[in-house]
Amino acid sequence: MNIDLDGILDSKRLAITRALSFVENSSDLDMSLTDSLFPHLGKAYRVGITGPPGAGKSSLVDRMIEYWRSQDKRVAVISVDPTSPFTGGAILGDRVRMGRHYADKGVFIRSMATRGSHGGLALRTQDAADIFDAAGYDIILYETVGVGQVELDVANAADTTLVVLVPESGDDIQAMKAGLMEIADLFVINKADRQGANQALTQIQSMLEMRHPEEDKWMPKVVKTSALQAEGTSGLMDVLLAHQEFLSAHGEFRQNFKTRIYEKIRSHVERKTLNKYWTSQKQDILNELLKQDDLSGLLPGKIVDSLLR
Amino acid sequence: MNIDLDGILDSKRLAITRALSFVENSSDLDMSLTDSLFPHLGKAYRVGITGPPGAGKSSLVDRMIEYWRSQDKRVAVISVDPTSPFTGGAILGDRVRMGRHYADKGVFIRSMATRGSHGGLALRTQDAADIFDAAGYDIILYETVGVGQVELDVANAADTTLVVLVPESGDDIQAMKAGLMEIADLFVINKADRQGANQALTQIQSMLEMRHPEEDKWMPKVVKTSALQAEGTSGLMDVLLAHQEFLSAHGEFRQNFKTRIYEKIRSHVERKTLNKYWTSQKQDILNELLKQDDLSGLLPGKIVDSLLR
Repeated sequence: MNIDLDGILDSKRLAITRALSFVENSSDLDMSLTDSLFPHLGKAYRVGITGPPGAGKSSLVDRMIEYWRSQDKRVAVISVDPTSPFTGGAILGDRVRMGRHYADKGVFIRSMATRGSHGGLALRTQDAADIFDAAGYDIILYETVGVGQVELDVANAADTTLVVLVPESGDDIQAMKAGLMEIADLFVINKADRQGANQALTQIQSMLEMRHPEEDKWMPKVVKTSALQAEGTSGLMDVLLAHQEFLSAHGEFRQNFKTRIYEKIRSHVERKTLNKYWTSQKQDILNELLKQDDLSGLLPGKIVDSLLR
Repeated sequence: MNIDLDGILDSKRLAITRALSFVENSSDLDMSLTDSLFPHLGKAYRVGITGPPGAGKSSLVDRMIEYWRSQDKRVAVISVDPTSPFTGGAILGDRVRMGRHYADKGVFIRSMATRGSHGGLALRTQDAADIFDAAGYDIILYETVGVGQVELDVANAADTTLVVLVPESGDDIQAMKAGLMEIADLFVINKADRQGANQALTQIQSMLEMRHPEEDKWMPKVVKTSALQAEGTSGLMDVLLAHQEFLSAHGEFRQNFKTRIYEKIRSHVERKTLNKYWTSQKQDILNELLKQDDLSGLLPGKIVDSLLR
């Protein structure tokens, strides 16, 4: 495809929209977009937001946009939605909560459909974010639904990762903590006007305190918000600012940037290697073997070996 | 390692435990266990259970075990837990709810730690299930926490997949539906004594009715349970039986078995191909490139091409 690089760099909406569609729909592993954009990357601040469905992430994002807009920052939001293979469309359900920002030219909200392509999703999200970065957006927010590994991968490819929970999450924090503790720079207890908010806050804080504090390492924070009531947003933004300053002071923005490009190159190389590996001949061998009626004599390990020869 | 195949086939607990430890700890892609077990597989009924944390999956599993034990079926439970890289251990939080079955020799409960190995988790879970299958367990339950892609992959590698929700999930079903609708053979609204249970049931039913019914295709069902109060279990078990009969009548047990072995072979081949690809020389090339201070002249796509040459 023809990428309108100048249009993207000038932040023309049409050029951005076209490039995003290219990223979302291309099934090949074309890196021409990456190569074009690369010299223009590294200026945006990337924030990942994840948490269980119903935690109020969209309302919170709405408040964050409001805050950044009041400071004249331009904001892009990439919502990663689970997509059904049989409908093909992204779930736009609670995007309406951010609706009031759609008319604002300083805000760009885009849903990315996952279309079941596990491996590709994190890559595509990065590509989309790169477009916004090159287009001069100051802030790029990735929003993911769920707390699974792919969701964490996506959120974790950010400079700052927020994990949004609700007071009722208290009981479940134990189960979730392992995955979440690793990635969260900041926990948000949203809907904090509901019962149990302080208890949930204490639970998370005591879990965080169990970690051995490491020098030069960010200590995750916990804040309470009621995004619908616009409460707690300034406290949240203060912590975000503190984390940004920490990242700058420790050269971590640069390091994150390098890690992202490293991972992108590695993923592309691996996917291309596998594409090349699976010749139709090899696919056929495997398919034929499994068409047999009596599989009891099959030795799967031997099949692997012979496919690798 | 020496696999005590006879011990496994005789369902000796020590032999099973050792084989499970091998599966959990081996970092290589040894398929000797698979080859040994393969002729003895295909008899167990595999059930996957997933859903958001706090939905009461463990209590439900407890009730299902109770039911199957009353019919003299032997049951193995594999709990897939998110694991923290810094603690290294599996979260055993609500396993206690199944505790009363630990002493029962007809029940084997095992937690599998994910230890951050995204790709390998589904494979390891299958390997563990194969051990129980060969050992003559009638039912193998996979329980996963969360609703992310990896969790779905694990749950989906079963003959029957249950998605457990709570009445409060109502608001969130919209967001989750895409991923869940694809995999669920059966939705369980647990904690149905709480408010909103009927509403959640209706919501799911109307979503299911939007699908075009396909001939010879199972139509997912919805049931309500209160596992802690032991309510609704028999209704749930009736649907499970109906699904089992459907699978038998349509040859799908056999097809699931073939799909699992196909996926296992494919995964092993791909992982070995990538292991072979990443020679230390190629790793070095990539690492060196990213050590440069000025990356602005970098062309990631060109690096990919040169790594593939």
